[in-house]
Amino acid sequence: MAEIQPQKVYDVVVVGGGPAGLMAALCLTTYGFNILHIDERPHPTTAGRADGIQPRTIEVLRNIGGVSTAPIPGGPVVGQPPIGGGGLAKRMISQGVRVYEVAFWDPTPTQKLARTSRAPSCPEFIDVVDNYTLLLHQGLIEQAFLEEIEARRTVLPDPQPTPPSGIFRPYNLQDCRTLSESEDPLSRSHPVECTIENGDTKTTYTIRSRYLLGCDGAKSHVRRCIAGGRVGDGEWQGKITMQGEATDIIWGVLDARVKTNFPDIKYKCLIHSRSEGSIMIIPREANLVRFYVQLQTTDNGKIVSIARDKATQDICIARAKKIFEPYDLEFGYVDWFSVYQIGQRIASSYTLDHRIILGGDATHTHSPQAGQGMNISMLDMYTLSWKLNLVMKGLARPEVLLPTYEDERRGVAQELLKFDGAYSRLFSGRGPDAKQLPNGVDPDEFIRMFKQNAFFTSGCGAVYSGNVLNALPGERVAKEGIFNPQGCKLIPGQRLTPGKVVRVVDGNDVRLQQEVKMNGAFRIHVFAGDLAKTRTALERFAAFIDSPGSFFNKYRAAPGTRASIIDAPAGLIDNVGDGKSRHIFNPFFTFLTIVGTHWYQWEIDELPSPLRLYRSQVYGDAVFDKRVPESADQTALGPDSALKQRACAPLHIKYGLDVNKGAIVVVRPDSYVGAVVELSEAGCEGLNDYFAGFLRESGGSPVRASF
Amino acid sequence: MAEIQPQKVYDVVVVGGGPAGLMAALCLTTYGFNILHIDERPHPTTAGRADGIQPRTIEVLRNIGGVSTAPIPGGPVVGQPPIGGGGLAKRMISQGVRVYEVAFWDPTPTQKLARTSRAPSCPEFIDVVDNYTLLLHQGLIEQAFLEEIEARRTVLPDPQPTPPSGIFRPYNLQDCRTLSESEDPLSRSHPVECTIENGDTKTTYTIRSRYLLGCDGAKSHVRRCIAGGRVGDGEWQGKITMQGEATDIIWGVLDARVKTNFPDIKYKCLIHSRSEGSIMIIPREANLVRFYVQLQTTDNGKIVSIARDKATQDICIARAKKIFEPYDLEFGYVDWFSVYQIGQRIASSYTLDHRIILGGDATHTHSPQAGQGMNISMLDMYTLSWKLNLVMKGLARPEVLLPTYEDERRGVAQELLKFDGAYSRLFSGRGPDAKQLPNGVDPDEFIRMFKQNAFFTSGCGAVYSGNVLNALPGERVAKEGIFNPQGCKLIPGQRLTPGKVVRVVDGNDVRLQQEVKMNGAFRIHVFAGDLAKTRTALERFAAFIDSPGSFFNKYRAAPGTRASIIDAPAGLIDNVGDGKSRHIFNPFFTFLTIVGTHWYQWEIDELPSPLRLYRSQVYGDAVFDKRVPESADQTALGPDSALKQRACAPLHIKYGLDVNKGAIVVVRPDSYVGAVVELSEAGCEGLNDYFAGFLRESGGSPVRASF
Repeated sequence: MAEIQPQKVYDVVVVGGGPAGLMAALCLTTYGFNILHIDERPHPTTAGRADGIQPRTIEVLRNIGGVSTAPIPGGPVVGQPPIGGGGLAKRMISQGVRVYEVAFWDPTPTQKLARTSRAPSCPEFIDVVDNYTLLLHQGLIEQAFLEEIEARRTVLPDPQPTPPSGIFRPYNLQDCRTLSESEDPLSRSHPVECTIENGDTKTTYTIRSRYLLGCDGAKSHVRRCIAGGRVGDGEWQGKITMQGEATDIIWGVLDARVKTNFPDIKYKCLIHSRSEGSIMIIPREANLVRFYVQLQTTDNGKIVSIARDKATQDICIARAKKIFEPYDLEFGYVDWFSVYQIGQRIASSYTLDHRIILGGDATHTHSPQAGQGMNISMLDMYTLSWKLNLVMKGLARPEVLLPTYEDERRGVAQELLKFDGAYSRLFSGRGPDAKQLPNGVDPDEFIRMFKQNAFFTSGCGAVYSGNVLNALPGERVAKEGIFNPQGCKLIPGQRLTPGKVVRVVDGNDVRLQQEVKMNGAFRIHVFAGDLAKTRTALERFAAFIDSPGSFFNKYRAAPGTRASIIDAPAGLIDNVGDGKSRHIFNPFFTFLTIVGTHWYQWEIDELPSPLRLYRSQVYGDAVFDKRVPESADQTALGPDSALKQRACAPLHIKYGLDVNKGAIVVVRPDSYVGAVVELSEAGCEGLNDYFAGFLRESGGSPVRASF
Repeated sequence: MAEIQPQKVYDVVVVGGGPAGLMAALCLTTYGFNILHIDERPHPTTAGRADGIQPRTIEVLRNIGGVSTAPIPGGPVVGQPPIGGGGLAKRMISQGVRVYEVAFWDPTPTQKLARTSRAPSCPEFIDVVDNYTLLLHQGLIEQAFLEEIEARRTVLPDPQPTPPSGIFRPYNLQDCRTLSESEDPLSRSHPVECTIENGDTKTTYTIRSRYLLGCDGAKSHVRRCIAGGRVGDGEWQGKITMQGEATDIIWGVLDARVKTNFPDIKYKCLIHSRSEGSIMIIPREANLVRFYVQLQTTDNGKIVSIARDKATQDICIARAKKIFEPYDLEFGYVDWFSVYQIGQRIASSYTLDHRIILGGDATHTHSPQAGQGMNISMLDMYTLSWKLNLVMKGLARPEVLLPTYEDERRGVAQELLKFDGAYSRLFSGRGPDAKQLPNGVDPDEFIRMFKQNAFFTSGCGAVYSGNVLNALPGERVAKEGIFNPQGCKLIPGQRLTPGKVVRVVDGNDVRLQQEVKMNGAFRIHVFAGDLAKTRTALERFAAFIDSPGSFFNKYRAAPGTRASIIDAPAGLIDNVGDGKSRHIFNPFFTFLTIVGTHWYQWEIDELPSPLRLYRSQVYGDAVFDKRVPESADQTALGPDSALKQRACAPLHIKYGLDVNKGAIVVVRPDSYVGAVVELSEAGCEGLNDYFAGFLRESGGSPVRASF
């Protein structure tokens, strides 16, 4: 068979096959785009590198779901999306190990090394379902992504061919640039031009695309191409610079199997020796242990780092044994070894023209010890992708929506760098404090800092500022008294916290947050409260949605345009009905109705249209939540013996939404809260204002013919 | 490639490839036996038949686990069993749908059909993790078993070849018998002889085996062979008879996709019409609906069943539409259709010689509506298999252990038949009561009965009587005051109820019940209570275990004999240690130590040997359980601010075990409680007495050379 070659035109070129590039490829494939994905390495990662998946990332992976492979008797079912369940997440969870607890080991007055403190990896106050760090090596993570991308490609109408690995490799990016609209006829739709080279045959190809994503790591060639400057100094000069600093602190990283009598070898441990430096260990799949070993030595009584070129695996192992004393530590099979230098840098810009866009390590680098890099890189692309989806399908104003990518993600990266700088220096004994060990470490200060930052390191503390998407109090759109109603505990710019509800159509207890899988749609949560009080408001809201002037009817893609391959192909997801296309259907919005009144006391068909048409997204708020014990009290909405053993509107209470009034919660396609408004006419106006802030009326012919 | 042919000698011949036969094959393969599995049907089930998996069965499937397919860097790890996780269960759960709630629809004075009641499928009082019925068609269930069996066969040292499907098919059993010991040299070890025929080529084979299991359904040919009598009357005459009765009540069964405005189409519904008969519907995977339709008509004003030969699919559909009135019901794709006659029958004996043994539908038949048949059939073989394992490896006295199979399982089948007879007649309008609809149904009585039997139908109520395995009060071995200590809520002959604990070796929250996967071993749970009070008793217990006279050292298989392919191949499962074989290792027993004292306050290495050697099976009893809210009180074992947010010995409390004294809970390999004794010298004696009741000292050369 002749080698498969890249085509000439794509929607998006993704440069780099690491976690960021894979997330971009998976999301954009789900949104139905044809992408060219290249990587300069001849093979995927087989060992080592990143290994920690944080709670928020697991939540995202669950929301991405997995392609169902069960055969469908009688052929595909209309209105039954092919994707659901926790595919990607479940696969990784079954392959990895979990860290729930962290142990801190330090010298004490009486012992060379002792466990001095413990901390939960993800403390109780963080409201997240998977309250642990999941550990498995990057190769397994990449493999799961590659297989899921390939499975989803089979659902695309006319996917461009790719090699069996799903990525063209080894292919190097040689150059990329954005053409002006007048340069050639294709420039209007596909202004990005790049030249790529097959690393084996040296054949070069010129590719045109609408966007190009630089996910090609710390030494990003994409960044160099757009920033200008000569090769070799591209990181430091030109239109984009990497800002920050490096230290002389050198650490070794090792994945190995060991024999030891150290009791906490299956915990994440942060170990400080009196004067030999520090180690962090993390348990891993297949009985491996990840070691981060500080490589320092003593020079005339002064502690100095080992020179990077002298930092061998053997030295790393010798240092580890020394730091572990008095415990035995014998090394067996070594799976991977590397060395890094602690430093924190961030790109001065993520993009220059919102056409060639950087993310992941190409925009931020830091030390790996906090287990954040892969997570934040994947989530960069997760959030960029849905924005590109809205823009490429003509629904959003690119000049308003695309800048929110850098705005939001650069904020998170800066937060990370601030934390990582202080954390890694403190861990390496370069903290500013006085009450410290001979090696420079202040254990108390270090433990305090670790615990204080758990919210951020879990990923749940990645908080976005107010902008057109996040209608925080003070934003122009967020009229006081209408947005963010009194008592509301949901905060725009933060993730929707989890909660279980009863899915009325089948009586299943389900997680509300995971009910709509990543499909590019805004999730309009109608918290209907006590129906006896809210029925009129609910009917008015439904009438508003049905009216020609509502955001739902104004912001529509061209006929035939789908939001993602997960959309019900022809109309509403309607498990009972006839599956026929309904004129009201708009795949970029979906409605979830959550009723506080016990679900035995009303019927789906009593709800006004269109809410009742989203049959499988109507819920009873009646599942006990240990964070809302007061909801177990049955009296709030009237006692009834048949309703016992069910909680009373716990999610309304948890989110701080008044059951007498109801509320509308807009959740962005990445499951961040966008806006919370009252259930009222003013609230409806508010929603229109909110979406008018970044969407546009597209109309006309399909923006993308092939999808 | 030449066709693969059956060999001449096997450990076990399994006749029948349905759920019972597949469960037998999977368990026996896990225990390392070479089996010949035949089925007379040319292909596995592709549609219809059984579809409901009950909570207890899901629990069992979880315990069977799944083969890990993740590649192991650096090769296999000593002491790392290849099986774990929830493989089989997770696969089925991801393919099926869940029923949490049941709706009852009946005529009312004002409405032709209305929802008159609801009930949870598995009420709150039943303490089980998966509190729902899982629905998927039997073909998907069989496929999951077949693939798991095949995966486990790869771990066998020298598996006999099988065709790609894992089962020889179509192969008919022609005859089977048990030879006397003197008949030929092989008779001592392999006394069972059977003749089988290839249904295509008509070639016949004579096979020898140690045991033969008849899982060949209601018309079991194995049963006929051993019972005697002529073909055609074998079910009713001979040494085994089917006892019970049939009715003239005919039901149709249909799997179909429908269009309807009936609101509860995704619930399990029990629907009674005023005079057109009854229907049960069950939601199924891929938007299918299972219909059980009563086929009756009116003859001169009298309700009579439709004759079986006239019960066509069209009539079934017509009846269904009639019963659903006034709701619309339109049938689309029909996946499967069948007709059955209500009746209950049970075999007078399950075996005549404990060599050729029957189970599943070959021993009990009843109506399918209660969703029990497949479950009880699978569990027949689940419990028989571990008993055969102990017997075939020379550890148990066959004359004592094997009769417990029929003793226990026939009791459950009788219970089922009693329930099913009353239930199906009541549902069909043949109940004895007066306050009934014109069609003979008494809805109130029916709903009452449904709710009353939920414990049994969940599978959690399959309770075994006292016998050598179940040391209930009153059993000879169960000395009062030593067995079943005061306050103990665990009951021998019932399953170990679930509970979460902290696995101390890695700080993970885990389900105690699922920590040891089905591996043929007795699970000795040492509930250590408050270490400050129990330390001496614990040390004495450990010394007892280590002593030559303990059951642990007395009941050992011949050297080299493993209990299952899941055993750590060479010694203890010791994630920290050197993985070297230790003389103390006995794979037929495993120890789990559950400590009431907060796990921050002691170290694994403080526990006496051998308990501490089972490092990965040492637990802190500190995970909040909503069924034991009082355990949230931190004062019971002394307050300590570092221990906050953890419950205090909730599992000790739930099981009714005194934290001041501790207790030993023996759990059988099928996760049923066998015995509960105090943690004392008398308790140790009690354990020795318990195991002496059915085990034997084997010694000598390996019982089975190939394993």
